[in-house]
Amino acid sequence: MNVAVDAMGGDNAPEVVVEGAVAAVSELGIPVTLVGRREKLGKILDAYKTSDLISVHHCEDMVHMDETPLKAVRQKKDASIRVAFDLVKSGAADAVVSAGNSGAILAAGVLILGRIKGVDRPAIASIVPTEKGPGVLIDVGANVDCRPTHLFQFGVMAQAFANSCLGIENPRIGLLSIGEEKSKGNEQVRLSHRLFRESSLNFAGNVEGRDLFDGDVDVIVCDGFVGNVALKVIEGVVEAISRNVKHELETSETDPSVALLCQNLINRFKQKLDYEEYGGAPLLGIKGVGIVCHGGSSSKAIKNAIRVAAQYADNRIVDKMSLALGAITEG
Amino acid sequence: MNVAVDAMGGDNAPEVVVEGAVAAVSELGIPVTLVGRREKLGKILDAYKTSDLISVHHCEDMVHMDETPLKAVRQKKDASIRVAFDLVKSGAADAVVSAGNSGAILAAGVLILGRIKGVDRPAIASIVPTEKGPGVLIDVGANVDCRPTHLFQFGVMAQAFANSCLGIENPRIGLLSIGEEKSKGNEQVRLSHRLFRESSLNFAGNVEGRDLFDGDVDVIVCDGFVGNVALKVIEGVVEAISRNVKHELETSETDPSVALLCQNLINRFKQKLDYEEYGGAPLLGIKGVGIVCHGGSSSKAIKNAIRVAAQYADNRIVDKMSLALGAITEG
Repeated sequence: MNVAVDAMGGDNAPEVVVEGAVAAVSELGIPVTLVGRREKLGKILDAYKTSDLISVHHCEDMVHMDETPLKAVRQKKDASIRVAFDLVKSGAADAVVSAGNSGAILAAGVLILGRIKGVDRPAIASIVPTEKGPGVLIDVGANVDCRPTHLFQFGVMAQAFANSCLGIENPRIGLLSIGEEKSKGNEQVRLSHRLFRESSLNFAGNVEGRDLFDGDVDVIVCDGFVGNVALKVIEGVVEAISRNVKHELETSETDPSVALLCQNLINRFKQKLDYEEYGGAPLLGIKGVGIVCHGGSSSKAIKNAIRVAAQYADNRIVDKMSLALGAITEG
Repeated sequence: MNVAVDAMGGDNAPEVVVEGAVAAVSELGIPVTLVGRREKLGKILDAYKTSDLISVHHCEDMVHMDETPLKAVRQKKDASIRVAFDLVKSGAADAVVSAGNSGAILAAGVLILGRIKGVDRPAIASIVPTEKGPGVLIDVGANVDCRPTHLFQFGVMAQAFANSCLGIENPRIGLLSIGEEKSKGNEQVRLSHRLFRESSLNFAGNVEGRDLFDGDVDVIVCDGFVGNVALKVIEGVVEAISRNVKHELETSETDPSVALLCQNLINRFKQKLDYEEYGGAPLLGIKGVGIVCHGGSSSKAIKNAIRVAAQYADNRIVDKMSLALGAITEG
């Protein structure tokens, strides 16, 4: 097992990324290859205890946050995110973790490793902390204009993922809409509903935005535009509640220790959402394991992303998705 | 001034609706016509002090929550929501308030009063409590498959509304997308962006879901599917935080009075969102004032919906939207 980490990607790269990688090696014993500028990474690594399990694979270039993903990935053959996927392609690594430009991670994954047979569009899945354990929201931003067949494929991929990586037996799939009846939703959703209903998948019908955290279904399918809006609305609401509570506490005569407790309770929920536990969002549909981390990931998030990347590779998630897609296509 | 209230619409109709109407009459002095079954409404009204300002307009029928809106509105000529709009059409009332089937309110408004010139699709606006005061999110569910021109018209209508009814001078308009750059978003949003940018409107560019409560823009435009998902995600997040905090407090040794305070702080935010203050969501683009209330509206929400309905009619919002749409079309 070896996880290739894009050391140059992320708002706090390379320092925090290296810190997370070192933690994955020392605390979890997972071998890591840091991909990026040898000199720069070497200097940062000097501050830590040496280990055989961590190595540096040099490359000169990187994709910046403000670059056009596909163009940058095509032109920069020596960019860290490309080289990380090259290591998986050659068999030198088993998975990629990156907190860089998410469009570039997607583009590099597809370009270097290719798509699994039966997948038209790879998608980014987000792990959502529900009442009943982790759930999956897919797609959260890889594809902004989806056809019903794309949504259907997202469902098949996420079901295989939830089963093999989250340990959920026969995961229930819901379709994000604006009412439970099958007639509800836009045209894309109504046509997708029919595809799911007529398939052999464990389809529970439409769900609404308010059901996101209930856990009544294990997978919620939507197009990447809607999913990304939803993720960011969640962020916005949590911030707004946090600000409101802070403001109310400051303008009242509440005991400071009580105010702190209230704040902490809300922050606890925020942390649950912050990918920290799951480290990042799996990129599903490419022939390999890729974890898309938040640009502002902490070292803890990077460490956990490396942990889940190794776990997903161990679980042979790509083979399982291939099987699921094959069964659906033939069935 | 007279507000026609659909007394038969809503989960708690007619009792709670009548209670709200009586409060609008007694506390605010706004004349109200209750539309519904005379016998039933008379019995409920018997419990309150009589007033010249409240009257009943009898009709036999109503549209139920589970009916297909357009079909029901077309067939049931004597349904309360149709009759309420008939009263506006004939000049006997100035605005309609309903907590009934929102699709039926939209269908009846369009069928009876017609659309303002320049409006292809009337839309439902939701008032959002931002950091800097009330903002507008439009559309939140009337139209699930929009073309860029529809989104543009939503912006024009909401700008006129924010100006004349919320008192915001030169309201700033944002377009809901998944990144601030104009290249971000799906095709619908990218094309809409161009329409806004090339217009004379005060367009601030794309905004994201996390900006919903910031108040950096006064109007956020999106299609009805996305807007409705966003509204329900907000509801879901607030519920999830509330449940999480409750659970953490119950399993800890927190002083019950402190636990209550924390709960109350979160509930305070919930109430802000619950339409209670603004009473409901204005239906923009029809030739008249219509307020769509939440099905589960309290009497306070109904009272406030009547208050804002009277205010919007007083402000001649329809004339102002007509002017704004005319100026844009000609300009």
